[in-house]
Amino acid sequence: MPLVPLKMSAAQLDRALAAMARVVGRDQVFAAEDDRRSYRDAYGPSHRSDHQPAAAVAPQSTEELQALLRIANEHKLPLWPISRGKNLGYGGTAPVLSGSVVLDLSRMKRILEVDVKSNYCLLEPGVSFFDLYQHLTDNKLPLWMSVPANSWGSVVGNALERGIGYTPYGEHTDRICGLEVALPSGELLRTGMGAMSGNKAWRSYKYGFGPAWDQMFVQSNFGVVTKMGLWLMPEPESTLTMQFELDEPQDLVWALDLLGELRMRRVIDSHVTIGTPLRTASLFTQRSEWYSGPGAVPDAVVREMAKKYGVGWWTFAIRLFGYEEVNQANARIIKAAFGKHSTREFKESTWRRGEPLPRAAVQVPTTFFLQAVNWHGGRGGHMGFSPMLPHGGEGAYAQYLRTKQRFDEFGIDYYGGFTLAERYATNVNIVLYDRDQRDMTDRAYRMIDQLVKDTAQAGYSEYRAHLSFMDGVAETYDFNHHAMRRLNQTVKDALDPNGILAPGKSGIWPRRFRASKETT
Amino acid sequence: MPLVPLKMSAAQLDRALAAMARVVGRDQVFAAEDDRRSYRDAYGPSHRSDHQPAAAVAPQSTEELQALLRIANEHKLPLWPISRGKNLGYGGTAPVLSGSVVLDLSRMKRILEVDVKSNYCLLEPGVSFFDLYQHLTDNKLPLWMSVPANSWGSVVGNALERGIGYTPYGEHTDRICGLEVALPSGELLRTGMGAMSGNKAWRSYKYGFGPAWDQMFVQSNFGVVTKMGLWLMPEPESTLTMQFELDEPQDLVWALDLLGELRMRRVIDSHVTIGTPLRTASLFTQRSEWYSGPGAVPDAVVREMAKKYGVGWWTFAIRLFGYEEVNQANARIIKAAFGKHSTREFKESTWRRGEPLPRAAVQVPTTFFLQAVNWHGGRGGHMGFSPMLPHGGEGAYAQYLRTKQRFDEFGIDYYGGFTLAERYATNVNIVLYDRDQRDMTDRAYRMIDQLVKDTAQAGYSEYRAHLSFMDGVAETYDFNHHAMRRLNQTVKDALDPNGILAPGKSGIWPRRFRASKETT
Repeated sequence: MPLVPLKMSAAQLDRALAAMARVVGRDQVFAAEDDRRSYRDAYGPSHRSDHQPAAAVAPQSTEELQALLRIANEHKLPLWPISRGKNLGYGGTAPVLSGSVVLDLSRMKRILEVDVKSNYCLLEPGVSFFDLYQHLTDNKLPLWMSVPANSWGSVVGNALERGIGYTPYGEHTDRICGLEVALPSGELLRTGMGAMSGNKAWRSYKYGFGPAWDQMFVQSNFGVVTKMGLWLMPEPESTLTMQFELDEPQDLVWALDLLGELRMRRVIDSHVTIGTPLRTASLFTQRSEWYSGPGAVPDAVVREMAKKYGVGWWTFAIRLFGYEEVNQANARIIKAAFGKHSTREFKESTWRRGEPLPRAAVQVPTTFFLQAVNWHGGRGGHMGFSPMLPHGGEGAYAQYLRTKQRFDEFGIDYYGGFTLAERYATNVNIVLYDRDQRDMTDRAYRMIDQLVKDTAQAGYSEYRAHLSFMDGVAETYDFNHHAMRRLNQTVKDALDPNGILAPGKSGIWPRRFRASKETT
Repeated sequence: MPLVPLKMSAAQLDRALAAMARVVGRDQVFAAEDDRRSYRDAYGPSHRSDHQPAAAVAPQSTEELQALLRIANEHKLPLWPISRGKNLGYGGTAPVLSGSVVLDLSRMKRILEVDVKSNYCLLEPGVSFFDLYQHLTDNKLPLWMSVPANSWGSVVGNALERGIGYTPYGEHTDRICGLEVALPSGELLRTGMGAMSGNKAWRSYKYGFGPAWDQMFVQSNFGVVTKMGLWLMPEPESTLTMQFELDEPQDLVWALDLLGELRMRRVIDSHVTIGTPLRTASLFTQRSEWYSGPGAVPDAVVREMAKKYGVGWWTFAIRLFGYEEVNQANARIIKAAFGKHSTREFKESTWRRGEPLPRAAVQVPTTFFLQAVNWHGGRGGHMGFSPMLPHGGEGAYAQYLRTKQRFDEFGIDYYGGFTLAERYATNVNIVLYDRDQRDMTDRAYRMIDQLVKDTAQAGYSEYRAHLSFMDGVAETYDFNHHAMRRLNQTVKDALDPNGILAPGKSGIWPRRFRASKETT
């Protein structure tokens, strides 16, 4: 039986899809059972029946997209836009609201501009990190991208989810300089200096005049981004990578205090990610090679992993980018600071312009880290749980202990760590599972639900959430009776009165769906 | 005859003011003739009769402010919020719409928090740069502020106007981390991680979950900021200041190419401002000491100023902040780069932690630069005209020539320069005048009107505008029939249906005023 969107009959859906087929062509409307399955969450547990798309439709151009939005309004059909749908661990291609039609933008994949003078590119949503990297290398352009650990996805999509990377340009959403957006009505808008036709500074100044809208279209359902301006980093003279190990769990306290200080002072200018041995082991092996006893993998086994890979309980790398003598000066400061706490030495490696790139260079897209989903064997998947913390080792260590205890309690192998930005730390937790093991995936979902609550009680919340947890995370943002949610709803209702664009994204529901959800 | 707001009778105004007096006390409602005059644009030409406030009212607390907003809604009384009203050159204390009541927030002046661990402060709008500096020095806190050249105003207000300073924290609006806002209804909202009660990361992560609102309350009329979280810079080990002169106007071309490159590569990590000899002369002398002939001060006289002060046609300083050896490494790179174009040497000076601060240290508030308004004698004033350019010396030089030609044409002394951010350059133009000289001020206004048009034709627009030019600047943002303005109006109508908050700010007019303005 075909799925239908909430409050829509099968016949109504068919009429809407037929109208859309007249815009994009019948072969770009995907409504068969196989199609619907392919647009479900690639990492979704197989027994779950939530987040099921009714169909998918793939426009090729902004004009086609605008026409689809107008049709969606006429038919009151909810659409769920995806760039390339590789938001793995957070729901992938699937919608929050079952019965939404996925608006697949992956055919809109033009690299519209790469400007070496402005160190800038203008992209459509379908451009992947690999596409852009290919373009830069084919044309020998001296520009570096910042890529996430799993670079399979869309450059635009990742920045719109506040994803991160490991160069000085690693705060991807901060690199946005101007958007073109199709509003839910289908109307086209440009932000920043792009709001002036022919403005020459649109690659250079983010804000335009008056209120600035870019971040309103990030992690939201106020419009569909059709073009994104993004700053790229001029190729540096040199990089210096400094790898370090911490032997004991509680070493996290002094190390994060120190790394936070070095980040605040801009001695380190790129994200530092610190993780446990299981992170390394899961890239090269499967769980069955290490442990087949009950419950989560014990610490003693994790120490075996550490020994095998020559890493500490915690391992991290600091990366410096720029002129070699400046990197060296900063490196001396880092080493002197660490030397007060540890006799270990950094493992250093240098790259200079003109040399071949090192293996695992962080500006090169890779899907290597996806190997981890094979940890349990079978059809692997994962989910992310990512609260934001201020800098500070004590708070992070307490969060680690608290969270690890839940992993142990739920019998799930602990895979967590911290990514240090200039001003904050993300406690990144990856929950690995075999999608076809019902007990395991049920435990995973229950644990994440518990972690959201634990973490709120400890005074933190998440910056990003899987579809199934968007409402729960939005619920934690409770100041003044969820004033932020109510404000977002007010704007949502004004921009999308028919409630057709991504209902439920980040917990923002259009008016017509709100009666059946919470009443705040 | 007392002024009344558009569409409001004197009796209605009196009733509204009486209701407000019951909230704040009669002595905090300023409705006498003297009061109204004191809230006009301090730099406004004396013959002009626009931007006249009907009265002013000064709440002491957020609760009083919320009550005033509710009264404004009941009585449909337009309010114009000011932090301390020192937005000199852009309109100061005055409203766009004559007859608005100024909402003076300067009594809300608590420094609510200064956190040395998070390098952060939480401020009310009435806190001045001097207040905060006093607090930091009195308490010997190792935190540096970034202050604008004229630091007489409010820290919060400046960031809400996208003002800048000269430390690495000089992009003030980017240092905002969380706001508390009273919406036009009077309802209270917190943004970012502050949207969760008791969240411990609200000093550290800007964005929260879902769409991020902070920049929606900047240069806008969607809400009144009652608290602002702001990042402060940890006191650096050292600073290195490098002063340089360029002899000829066209030296701007290679110098801005080079400075832009050095900024993009983060060799220089703070704003560099480059200006002409008249900028220096106006700080120490008056026009009458140099020239009393017809028209604008001729270039030959400007060269005399250069000679007297030992500056070039252009003068600028590069400032490096951080560890001394890193500053030295960056300084060597800068000197090598400049050495390819000029045999001149930088004049360098170093400060190290523990030493007394140098004169004109850029983290110390000052009003010294206001001396310039005395240039013409009499009651001096100025207005700012500030288009945004991409990096690049040719474009900047063309903008300089084009703009200077207009100054010469209108008989106004050229006072212009460029401030280089990491990715863009602001062409800062200051129009100095004697407020009581009608011919001079009329020419100034006509010239700015012309400059807005010239500049739009050249492909640039402004990031900030004087009250009298907000509509004109908003008009240049014309992509898709002013889609951005229409979007802002949609949100404005949703958040402020009675149209009581800062009508006309950044060209955003509430519905009830739109019929009498342009129809787009």
